[in-house]
Amino acid sequence: MYRVRFVPLGGIIGVTKNMYVYELYKDDSLQDIIIIDCGIGFPREQEFGVDLAIPDIAYLMDKKDKIRALLLTHGHEDHITALRFHYNNLGRPPVYASKLTSLLAQHKCDEYNVKLRMNLINFDNTYHFGGFKAKFIRMTHSIPDTTHILLSSPVGSFYHGSDFKMDLTPPFGYAPDFYEIAKAGKDGVLCLMSDSLGADREGFTLSESVVGKTFEDEIRTTKGRFIMTTFASNISRVRQCAEAAVKFNRRVCLLGRSMKENTKLVKDIGYFPIPPKFLIEEKQLSKYKPHEICIIATGSQGQYGSALSRLATNGNKFVRVSKGDKVLFSSDPIPGNEEEVYDIIEHLYVLGADVRYSDVAEQLHASGHGSQGDMLLLMRLTQPKHLIPIGGTIRHQRLYLELAKRMNYQDKQVHLLREGETVWFDQDGRSALGEPVITKNVYVDAYGVGDVGETILRDRMTLSTEGIVFTVLKVGRDNLLAEKPEFTSRGFIFGAGGENNKEKDTIFNGAAEVIGKSFDQNRGSMPLKKRPGLSTRKVLFLKLPTNAHS
Amino acid sequence: MYRVRFVPLGGIIGVTKNMYVYELYKDDSLQDIIIIDCGIGFPREQEFGVDLAIPDIAYLMDKKDKIRALLLTHGHEDHITALRFHYNNLGRPPVYASKLTSLLAQHKCDEYNVKLRMNLINFDNTYHFGGFKAKFIRMTHSIPDTTHILLSSPVGSFYHGSDFKMDLTPPFGYAPDFYEIAKAGKDGVLCLMSDSLGADREGFTLSESVVGKTFEDEIRTTKGRFIMTTFASNISRVRQCAEAAVKFNRRVCLLGRSMKENTKLVKDIGYFPIPPKFLIEEKQLSKYKPHEICIIATGSQGQYGSALSRLATNGNKFVRVSKGDKVLFSSDPIPGNEEEVYDIIEHLYVLGADVRYSDVAEQLHASGHGSQGDMLLLMRLTQPKHLIPIGGTIRHQRLYLELAKRMNYQDKQVHLLREGETVWFDQDGRSALGEPVITKNVYVDAYGVGDVGETILRDRMTLSTEGIVFTVLKVGRDNLLAEKPEFTSRGFIFGAGGENNKEKDTIFNGAAEVIGKSFDQNRGSMPLKKRPGLSTRKVLFLKLPTNAHS
Repeated sequence: MYRVRFVPLGGIIGVTKNMYVYELYKDDSLQDIIIIDCGIGFPREQEFGVDLAIPDIAYLMDKKDKIRALLLTHGHEDHITALRFHYNNLGRPPVYASKLTSLLAQHKCDEYNVKLRMNLINFDNTYHFGGFKAKFIRMTHSIPDTTHILLSSPVGSFYHGSDFKMDLTPPFGYAPDFYEIAKAGKDGVLCLMSDSLGADREGFTLSESVVGKTFEDEIRTTKGRFIMTTFASNISRVRQCAEAAVKFNRRVCLLGRSMKENTKLVKDIGYFPIPPKFLIEEKQLSKYKPHEICIIATGSQGQYGSALSRLATNGNKFVRVSKGDKVLFSSDPIPGNEEEVYDIIEHLYVLGADVRYSDVAEQLHASGHGSQGDMLLLMRLTQPKHLIPIGGTIRHQRLYLELAKRMNYQDKQVHLLREGETVWFDQDGRSALGEPVITKNVYVDAYGVGDVGETILRDRMTLSTEGIVFTVLKVGRDNLLAEKPEFTSRGFIFGAGGENNKEKDTIFNGAAEVIGKSFDQNRGSMPLKKRPGLSTRKVLFLKLPTNAHS
Repeated sequence: MYRVRFVPLGGIIGVTKNMYVYELYKDDSLQDIIIIDCGIGFPREQEFGVDLAIPDIAYLMDKKDKIRALLLTHGHEDHITALRFHYNNLGRPPVYASKLTSLLAQHKCDEYNVKLRMNLINFDNTYHFGGFKAKFIRMTHSIPDTTHILLSSPVGSFYHGSDFKMDLTPPFGYAPDFYEIAKAGKDGVLCLMSDSLGADREGFTLSESVVGKTFEDEIRTTKGRFIMTTFASNISRVRQCAEAAVKFNRRVCLLGRSMKENTKLVKDIGYFPIPPKFLIEEKQLSKYKPHEICIIATGSQGQYGSALSRLATNGNKFVRVSKGDKVLFSSDPIPGNEEEVYDIIEHLYVLGADVRYSDVAEQLHASGHGSQGDMLLLMRLTQPKHLIPIGGTIRHQRLYLELAKRMNYQDKQVHLLREGETVWFDQDGRSALGEPVITKNVYVDAYGVGDVGETILRDRMTLSTEGIVFTVLKVGRDNLLAEKPEFTSRGFIFGAGGENNKEKDTIFNGAAEVIGKSFDQNRGSMPLKKRPGLSTRKVLFLKLPTNAHS
């Protein structure tokens, strides 16, 4: 009697930080584990000072010997970059990935001296991992060499439909392998795990090649420099722009660390076939006339200090953006980044550039994620008995459920999970919610892995909105205050010498009075010696009228 | 050494009148013929007095013994209705069709006493017809039981992708069988013949079920009668509307001969499962309150005398359209019909009805034909070596070629044919244009088949724009005019007693003078006795200033 348990350790509702565990049980005894992806999460605005989040693998620590393989779907950071933290801890299982994915995964591990036991996949092969069999299926997304994975077991088949769109005309690389997908459906899929991030968009997502056409049209009508910005990970986009530039005899200059790094990596495997004489360094920019130049820069999200933000503020010493130049944003602002992006756009207009972004022009950007049409097509092709939306938020899960209903699925066939919530599948095709796996948020900041807990984050949030005040109490041998309390503050009120000194004095004098009284009333009961000099939180966070904030 | 020749006898650029011939040759000797579809064409505006056009089958007359089968793709008139004229002449080959298609095909033949040797197809079967093998593949269109046909031969496989859209959520019946389509592609398709009619629309065509949702929304907000008009052949549309009406407890009344006939036919096979108590006759309409009524009527193209046009002009004695009623056009006007449709809309507004049509509301109608996305998907699935766009116009062929180029096809792989132009395919996958088959236009009017030739049509066109004048010449024994010529006219100038009598007299007097002179000069050489009373054309069509026309 076999059963399979699906355990999402991340990615299920957080969009990023993808890591999924498939467990095969025989008579209640765990036989084999397959892990799909191991990516980082990007901090939300509320996660102050956190560089990134990674999946919590505590649950797997006593099961390492059952991990048969770690399969990677594609080379985006939220699917591969946690390997450098977790790979050795997972017992170094064999890794399987496509060409570009394996290259990027190892590259991300290099600086951490983590060496992956990498196996380059062959799409014609079926891989046997204990009781599991895995077949990689060609799929399209915003990075080449993306795959879906058909995971078969004695219980049934699971179609792991990670990040994708059904690109019928991909500019490079392969198209979705419709035959293999439909064959999976024909042979029977027990559950489809499907990217749900585009569930709020009608129709089908634009083909990546549409953007290539736009690049050509826009370059044709540009008199000065042509400057394009997008995510460095969108290798097809960067390549299409560079190829369009070459077509119009422009030199291509890549700006931004990740842009240079990514293109350097993929050049070696032939994924960036731009003739060397067309690629120029930053310092050569001044040698060419504006109409001979195409710049591809990082900073599409308006990041401070990025290549684009330096261009927009004349901070690049080799080139000055000016009238006749055109800047094209081949990306939409991620919600929350709008202000920064519009700020850069303002600067660019002031410099005289023409700016093209999605509000004013069409087909500058194509999402890497499928829309409702793409998702319905995957459902129709795989014809699964059960569905689990992944890679979205709770909102996307609900919308995916609505989509599934259009396909005549019942509520009970669509499982909307939170992180760590598990589903059992049995040999009769039945499913049941399992005991959840407790996962914690594991954050990485500049100092290390996992040393930033919820309390620290909560404190940082308070600090970010209220600031902090320290008070030093000098206490005599008689257990009485020897001096008036002294205050030091950060982010609380204008600093010493500022114009608000008078108000500050008033507040601090009042605070000193309150503290003095409180201390005298409670002396003896307060464990002062344990925390000398640092007051309790209650005292620390004095509410101020809003207008007193800096 | 085998070869296959593809011969479109109709449908290739005329949209309608579909009839395609596939011929298998062995060493230049014709072995087997398969015919796909045999439909009527609808007269263009320039074809006066013609009821319909049918394919010219003269080419097949000396090859009847090679015709192995006649396959039908779906039940629309432009694919089945010429059978009643041609079936017996073709030697009564066995016919293969899906359930609804076979029902409609036989029904269209019944009144002509033509009995089809009909075989109901099974989608799991492969049919052997001499050297050909045929497999029917489930497909979606605006009528249920639509199919595509994979025709295999020693030369290779031909995917006959007749009228279709990729409906992922068909309201009834089956979805496209993606596995079989992709499998055809995997096994190798030599040539895809693809519906090209939607090649000017971006993205994917809306699912038919979207319209069902619109019906519910519109009925929910209708206080009075709900009246829907569409093509009677769109059985899914009619059924969705009736089901939405039942949901809101309204009685359904079908108006118009074809609407009643079609629903009656499909009711027998379970394709119109509306509870009988919800279906009412026209004369019962007055017994129900407006909010209890849903009328489904023919006349969506504004046809004079149609059920809808009678409603709009208060010509229906059982019901009067009035305030609170809503009329929904679930169809777009076919180019050329706009004026008639808008005229009906005017009338309905005057009666106080709320009118919903595609200019003012969305998702009232979904085309049965795929858009660019649907076509690209079919190309991607079948991965053919060659492409032939069918079922469109020359414009659609060109746009289809552009689409194919997006898929990296070369010009020489895409064959843009005219009616009768043929293509040879050989065993090495090569193709070449063949000797064209001469086809004539065969028209059917009220009096019979094929008795309306091009000359008659040209005359009718002239008559329609210039009118006609007869003159009677009374000639004496001396071969001189005995009296002044007399004139009778129709459609030429205002008739006797009209206000323009003075102008008419002037013209006819002048004409009489010209004719008299001409007669006297040429007497003896004119074969008057052969055509007494009817002047030659040259004299007949006198050009008048435009403002003299009625």
